[in-house]
Amino acid sequence: MRAAILAVGSELLGEDRTESNSLRLAKVLADHGVELALKVAVGDREAEIAAEVARLMARHELVLLTGGLGPTADDVTREAVARALGRELAHDAGLEEALRARYAGLGRRMPEANRKQADLVAGAVPLANRHGTAPGQRIDAGDTTLFLFPGVPHELEAMVEAELRPWLLARTGGEVRERITVRTAGLPESEVDELLGPVYERFPRDQITVLGAAGEVRVRLTAGGAAEPRRAFLAALLSAVREALGEAIFAESESATLEGAVGELLRARGATLAVAESCTGGLVSERLTRVPGASAFLLGGTVAYDNELKSRWLGVPPALLAAEGAVSEAVARAMAEGVRSRAGAGYGLALTGVAGPGGGTEAKPVGTVALALAFPGPPPGALSRLVRLPGDRNRVRWHASQLALDLLRRHLEAGRTG
Amino acid sequence: MRAAILAVGSELLGEDRTESNSLRLAKVLADHGVELALKVAVGDREAEIAAEVARLMARHELVLLTGGLGPTADDVTREAVARALGRELAHDAGLEEALRARYAGLGRRMPEANRKQADLVAGAVPLANRHGTAPGQRIDAGDTTLFLFPGVPHELEAMVEAELRPWLLARTGGEVRERITVRTAGLPESEVDELLGPVYERFPRDQITVLGAAGEVRVRLTAGGAAEPRRAFLAALLSAVREALGEAIFAESESATLEGAVGELLRARGATLAVAESCTGGLVSERLTRVPGASAFLLGGTVAYDNELKSRWLGVPPALLAAEGAVSEAVARAMAEGVRSRAGAGYGLALTGVAGPGGGTEAKPVGTVALALAFPGPPPGALSRLVRLPGDRNRVRWHASQLALDLLRRHLEAGRTG
Repeated sequence: MRAAILAVGSELLGEDRTESNSLRLAKVLADHGVELALKVAVGDREAEIAAEVARLMARHELVLLTGGLGPTADDVTREAVARALGRELAHDAGLEEALRARYAGLGRRMPEANRKQADLVAGAVPLANRHGTAPGQRIDAGDTTLFLFPGVPHELEAMVEAELRPWLLARTGGEVRERITVRTAGLPESEVDELLGPVYERFPRDQITVLGAAGEVRVRLTAGGAAEPRRAFLAALLSAVREALGEAIFAESESATLEGAVGELLRARGATLAVAESCTGGLVSERLTRVPGASAFLLGGTVAYDNELKSRWLGVPPALLAAEGAVSEAVARAMAEGVRSRAGAGYGLALTGVAGPGGGTEAKPVGTVALALAFPGPPPGALSRLVRLPGDRNRVRWHASQLALDLLRRHLEAGRTG
Repeated sequence: MRAAILAVGSELLGEDRTESNSLRLAKVLADHGVELALKVAVGDREAEIAAEVARLMARHELVLLTGGLGPTADDVTREAVARALGRELAHDAGLEEALRARYAGLGRRMPEANRKQADLVAGAVPLANRHGTAPGQRIDAGDTTLFLFPGVPHELEAMVEAELRPWLLARTGGEVRERITVRTAGLPESEVDELLGPVYERFPRDQITVLGAAGEVRVRLTAGGAAEPRRAFLAALLSAVREALGEAIFAESESATLEGAVGELLRARGATLAVAESCTGGLVSERLTRVPGASAFLLGGTVAYDNELKSRWLGVPPALLAAEGAVSEAVARAMAEGVRSRAGAGYGLALTGVAGPGGGTEAKPVGTVALALAFPGPPPGALSRLVRLPGDRNRVRWHASQLALDLLRRHLEAGRTG
């Protein structure tokens, strides 16, 4: 089965908005082994939408439309699809009743403009919208099936799960593609790829996708076919990947974050953390406080951008700063130990570096970052690293924050006390 | 003139990548009054690309292709366009020479795969690529002109400015659409809209676009037509908007940032800043350190997530915390004054709030944030605000960081000393 997506909305042709509903649709299609062949974005003009619908139907068995189902004059997807199919729009009294009831439940009268949301293309099956007023529609026309979805992302998402996925499941005979996303930190993409060498020898290469970003590499494993062999295959593949990548793996989920994994480890151990930052300017503590309930493990942090504050706030000896320079493992360790003891935390994490564009020297060019972790022991101690990171200021900062969080994660996961 | 964009690349049909080159193209088209009618994304298959090119040419005078100009086997845009036009691909020895010279300049031999990047569709004008190996092409075919651009964003951007913009300028007789983006902070979208009431009465509504986000509203002014009346119109419109929005305006540029504006004001005054944060976890200092050269004005910051650290690190009296609660104007002022004096900075900025999802009470629900600014005077003093912000944890945190930066910006811009 080949599918096309037609996104309707003049705002999608402007310079401000990328279209993202199609990513969600692409995922569901991929889960069910349906090839997405084409994506089109068109403005709010009935004739143009109709022309695109007719054209896409000629070459695709599944056409997914998004947007243009609202109550305003420029919402013309219903009319355009009816025109493309040479069918009438029929007003559905039951749908209108449901719309009026929805408004009544919110203590409001339905604006008359919303009446047209109860118009169905003749022969269409209405699709309930649990989160908004615009019902969707499913229409069979010759060899093609059309789905009309609302453009509001969370309305579309719910409707896709409730309507499209079961439809695809029935159409593809219960077979789906399944996936597991393995997320790693601390290794560059090339090294992950190299470590996966033995896995590539045993498993089909096209079922393993490696996606790299600064300080994080995702490995996506996919399998199709009937449920039992599919799951057995994925379990074997996952086990091989775990063996290959070992402690670089911080999560086996698409939605996990490194800060979330670190927070979970700290929480599970009843441990607390304080962070001392220079070049990252607060990014590490900001990321940790994105985690709901972060107060359980994060006591606080210090952004000692100025060198004098590294001494005054963190107790870094001015002589050490003068001798080693602010960007050095010795200073990072002193910062980590300083913030740990001054916050009364179990762990202290520190970063100091040259994010650029200025400030680089021959010995310590832009991208040089020192990282350190002070740990409680027994006996208490510290470990540190000096790295050179590529890219511009923001990329260096993000990458450094990844490495710092990963330093702590690996230490906690290894259960080391020293 | 009506234009269509055809983005080539199988990765654009997956679930990970939104296509953003078209935003850049849409802007340039809009600048020159050319309507973008359709956007299509297609995979790396020669026959399908060729079919789309033929179809788009039939209805658009300008077709812009992006991607598929690389050296690998799946880069087939050149072949597909030649097929759609019924033309040959001709190898250009001069282009190949230039490619080899480019590699030689980097001290490398050109891989043989790159030879095909010197293939031109018969009749095409090659477009130089200053940032990569893939040359672009411009092809006139009947009533339609095609541009082939590389898919790498910064290569495309440079080529669009060097080739497409002058071509459009010549085609549209020197007339362009011009725009000014006025950026405001501290007002909700509805209030900006209301303040613009008198402007709407004097100027055409469709030349003023209001774009809202958390803690920031952009007002985009556009005008077309010949240069002189266009500029006079824009100047009059801008002056009316300035009068309506006054000190809410922090920049008149699309690319400016609020942290950049604050940094500029501090730098111009030779003033320094320290930041004390709780709910935002370092976001304000992180944003300020995004500005290159931030060390000129930012001394550092304290993330006092834990209440005890608010006292220990910032000198907030425990009795004040007990009496007023951590989320209060009094505590925010004490934090601002504490961080200012302990960092030896001119200004101290502080935030404390309930970002959620937990921690809300009836008196201080999720979204309650206290902000304070301590200033040097003479005489030194502090000002504060208590606000309730809508949305989830991340939205509350971002919005709070906007309001804090804006509090400082307005104080600095007013040139107040007390």
